[in-house]
Amino acid sequence: MRFSSKVKKCGLSPMRKFHPYAVAAKAAGKRIYHLNIGQPDIATPSQYFEAVRNFHQPVLAYSESPGMPALIEAILKYYEKHGMRFTQEEVLITTGGSEALQIVFNCVLDNGDEIIIPEPFYPNYNTMVNTCGAVIRPIPTSPEDGYFYADRARIEAAINERTRAIMCTNPGNPTGTVLTPEEMRMMVDVAKEHDLFLIGDEAYREFVYEENEPLRSMGEFEDAAENVVIIDTVSKRFSACGARIGCIISRNRELIGEALKYCQARLAVATLDQIASAALYDVGPEYFAAVKEEYRLRRDTVVAKLREIPGVICECPRGAFYLMAALPVDDADAFQQWLLTDFDDNGDTVMFAPGEPFYATPGKGKNEIRIAYVLKQQDLERAMDLLAKGIEAYNRR
Amino acid sequence: MRFSSKVKKCGLSPMRKFHPYAVAAKAAGKRIYHLNIGQPDIATPSQYFEAVRNFHQPVLAYSESPGMPALIEAILKYYEKHGMRFTQEEVLITTGGSEALQIVFNCVLDNGDEIIIPEPFYPNYNTMVNTCGAVIRPIPTSPEDGYFYADRARIEAAINERTRAIMCTNPGNPTGTVLTPEEMRMMVDVAKEHDLFLIGDEAYREFVYEENEPLRSMGEFEDAAENVVIIDTVSKRFSACGARIGCIISRNRELIGEALKYCQARLAVATLDQIASAALYDVGPEYFAAVKEEYRLRRDTVVAKLREIPGVICECPRGAFYLMAALPVDDADAFQQWLLTDFDDNGDTVMFAPGEPFYATPGKGKNEIRIAYVLKQQDLERAMDLLAKGIEAYNRR
Repeated sequence: MRFSSKVKKCGLSPMRKFHPYAVAAKAAGKRIYHLNIGQPDIATPSQYFEAVRNFHQPVLAYSESPGMPALIEAILKYYEKHGMRFTQEEVLITTGGSEALQIVFNCVLDNGDEIIIPEPFYPNYNTMVNTCGAVIRPIPTSPEDGYFYADRARIEAAINERTRAIMCTNPGNPTGTVLTPEEMRMMVDVAKEHDLFLIGDEAYREFVYEENEPLRSMGEFEDAAENVVIIDTVSKRFSACGARIGCIISRNRELIGEALKYCQARLAVATLDQIASAALYDVGPEYFAAVKEEYRLRRDTVVAKLREIPGVICECPRGAFYLMAALPVDDADAFQQWLLTDFDDNGDTVMFAPGEPFYATPGKGKNEIRIAYVLKQQDLERAMDLLAKGIEAYNRR
Repeated sequence: MRFSSKVKKCGLSPMRKFHPYAVAAKAAGKRIYHLNIGQPDIATPSQYFEAVRNFHQPVLAYSESPGMPALIEAILKYYEKHGMRFTQEEVLITTGGSEALQIVFNCVLDNGDEIIIPEPFYPNYNTMVNTCGAVIRPIPTSPEDGYFYADRARIEAAINERTRAIMCTNPGNPTGTVLTPEEMRMMVDVAKEHDLFLIGDEAYREFVYEENEPLRSMGEFEDAAENVVIIDTVSKRFSACGARIGCIISRNRELIGEALKYCQARLAVATLDQIASAALYDVGPEYFAAVKEEYRLRRDTVVAKLREIPGVICECPRGAFYLMAALPVDDADAFQQWLLTDFDDNGDTVMFAPGEPFYATPGKGKNEIRIAYVLKQQDLERAMDLLAKGIEAYNRR
């Protein structure tokens, strides 16, 4: 049987190949510290579960295709609190940020079109762009300059007649980079001047570690109403990844109208998860303050520990709960496998995400890794010690 | 801003245009009997809500990309009870049957490819096929022969070098037609002989109204392991449309491998809904017996009432909870609008789904309607009386 050329261009998760080795290591009694996945360990606010328990309708019916009004209202209020005004008609609820991305890409990307994305980037963008028959044009960055990409000349050099959109993951996954307000303005201006969509994937918006810095969003730029599309989700904001609730927000009503076609074709988003996600927006600022402080401490731990390892290149990231670093190893992928098969320290080893799959440019990222600092402080310290010992032993072998 | 040619080919829900008229009619004090939507009124089994209330983990985490093992196990047992054996690796959990369809279409349909679908068909197939850049090749049917399509010559006449798959919605939405075992065998044989996927959308599998007839599924045909793909969902089976839990089932491991790429790219299906849907599979046969009996009575009421209306053409459908009928009106769409704006009987009126959007062939279905018999017996009788009075008044006006 023949399969579509689009799916053939996509790949399975690059982490998948480590799974059997991880299983074998665990079976052999090793304990693995996981720095490889972006699943936060922070408790989901109880409001979620209370709302679910308080649902007492007899029929679990389809909700509205654009999303439940109560959830949209809660989201609008959240944005208003942060100085951004949107109307009910400018929001579409989706099954996670993932579906929001898929729908927006399908609306704006045709076969052969290009979307500009700074690299390294979230690898699932590959599958989503391939599905549209489109191509990712990366903006190159390097670990040496902290994965900085917000340079007008570099972005404009990537624009051609097939370019339809610029993707801006801010704060960045996997890099943790955060744009300054001036850099955001510049990105918006480039999009406006070249008639491009500016897709802001802002899943990690809350996770910026400067003191007293207000939340930032591409949604602030009302003068770019036609260009800006925001991808949002409750997954990281409320540590509710399993809710699969996200949304598309845009003042471009034509875009929303096109996206609604896809929302109607898949009928609706899960009813209970929408009701419960609306309740999440009731959590107070003390929740975010505590979560931010926790992650800030973890980031500082990881960065401090990394800087003690000779040969590691790593800037201190300003946001998200990831960082990329270049290691003094020949091949991070081979190193990861070796950590599972040939290394342990008192029965412990460590997993991270090798860097290559985060790049579109072949060969880049070979000695880089992504670390997700989603472990408790003590485990994180141990994990970083294991990484240091692993590097030393690997290069000595 | 420019949008993709694929989304431009898609349409918004054809029912949408009636929305303002329905709102106005309600505002004017009219009561509308809704025969236009497939949202069952049957209570969702309490097992669902109990499972949700019994969830006590602190973090609502991502589930596994292929689906939660407990839900897959429950589904495997259900199939085994009906004489079909699948393994854990042959099932992928999806966000409703809708996502299952989208993923399978993306796996098998390339730009310019064709998929054969008997018409009238579920209109959302249009958006899903358009998104792949592919084309629906309809198998024509007619109300006069009860929308019969399972004719080998007619199906083979639609096959050409671009054909990749045959879609078989069985029981049918919108027609309620149900294939005989011999017809199913023939469809499978055609798919095998021509190296085509046979996609069985079996959302309504439980809803077949003959006494003591065993459940049928394309999954029975183990000799067509490479060809058969089943689209399944808890939506109608358990009256749990708002759960958005479906699955892809196939013995074609290569297909499952390709589909897994999409499952990984969107990370996971909602966690609570999966846990709760697994619990749904604990409901006993008495649940299905009662639901079937209720729908059978409703179907009989609708068919009997329709046959009293002069000029209506309607075969008694054997399954699902829909039927198509040809009305003695010039234009079912104009008639629907008139029912909302110009008609009432003691303040009551009725809505159905006009037939044209269910067809791919232009101009077909103009005097047809789809009725969803998802109302209680008494309301259904009143709705059918309103339809009869409406037709008479419309043709007299």
